[in-house]
Amino acid sequence: MTDSTDSPADVPAFDAEASSLAGRIAPEVMAELLSVRSSIDNIDAALVYLLAERFKATQRVGFLKAAHRLPPADPDREAAQIGRLRALAASAHLDPGFAEKFLNFIISEVIHHHQAISENHAAGQDDAGDGSPTVRSNPAQQ
Amino acid sequence: MTDSTDSPADVPAFDAEASSLAGRIAPEVMAELLSVRSSIDNIDAALVYLLAERFKATQRVGFLKAAHRLPPADPDREAAQIGRLRALAASAHLDPGFAEKFLNFIISEVIHHHQAISENHAAGQDDAGDGSPTVRSNPAQQ
Repeated sequence: MTDSTDSPADVPAFDAEASSLAGRIAPEVMAELLSVRSSIDNIDAALVYLLAERFKATQRVGFLKAAHRLPPADPDREAAQIGRLRALAASAHLDPGFAEKFLNFIISEVIHHHQAISENHAAGQDDAGDGSPTVRSNPAQQ
Repeated sequence: MTDSTDSPADVPAFDAEASSLAGRIAPEVMAELLSVRSSIDNIDAALVYLLAERFKATQRVGFLKAAHRLPPADPDREAAQIGRLRALAASAHLDPGFAEKFLNFIISEVIHHHQAISENHAAGQDDAGDGSPTVRSNPAQQ
């Protein structure tokens, strides 16, 4: 079998009960573990689809910035986002420091995408200024 | 004003229009940018609350592992999760490589939390084995 990191086509069917602990713990403990993990798997699917939607939105921002030759980063916007997410995290009983690290993780990926869009745009686009340019490839949509 | 990274109480009210680009781009471009950013802000709030729920679930796993003296990491489980998330990402037109990086980012935080729960448990708990220990502090719920 090929390495599962090569492409989605190489990914084996998901085994919701996969565990290095299998056979090493009492059945009732494993049952409780699998029950909680099933909830985690549901949440993870929701997170992936939300992240996909978020990247669709930031892709639109990237196109807008490329069309108007704006810089990829926006420090004032990022500072406002971080302050808001820390406050939201606190209200959800999530560590605000983790929420900030999470946003920085996402933003660094977005800026990387925006730079790629901008480079594509500068390399071959003639429609700068119309607000709806197309690009030949987009790292967020591979 | 104190540094906004100190605590949620120090975070100023959110300015949804904060931008280093303010006054430097055409009003109609800024209006389009703010419209997309409003969607991003909604998605980010959903992400934060989902992440909070995910950490509640992994906290339960952490308690279970501490009570039964199980190792914080579970390599077979993590491999299955990564394969599934890559496939989900592909179906959502999200870069599978990013989805994998995202899960690794979350898992490393979870393992850190599990280690803290385990250390708290070992340091002062007498109820190992009952499946519902309490801990004095939890980094995920600060």
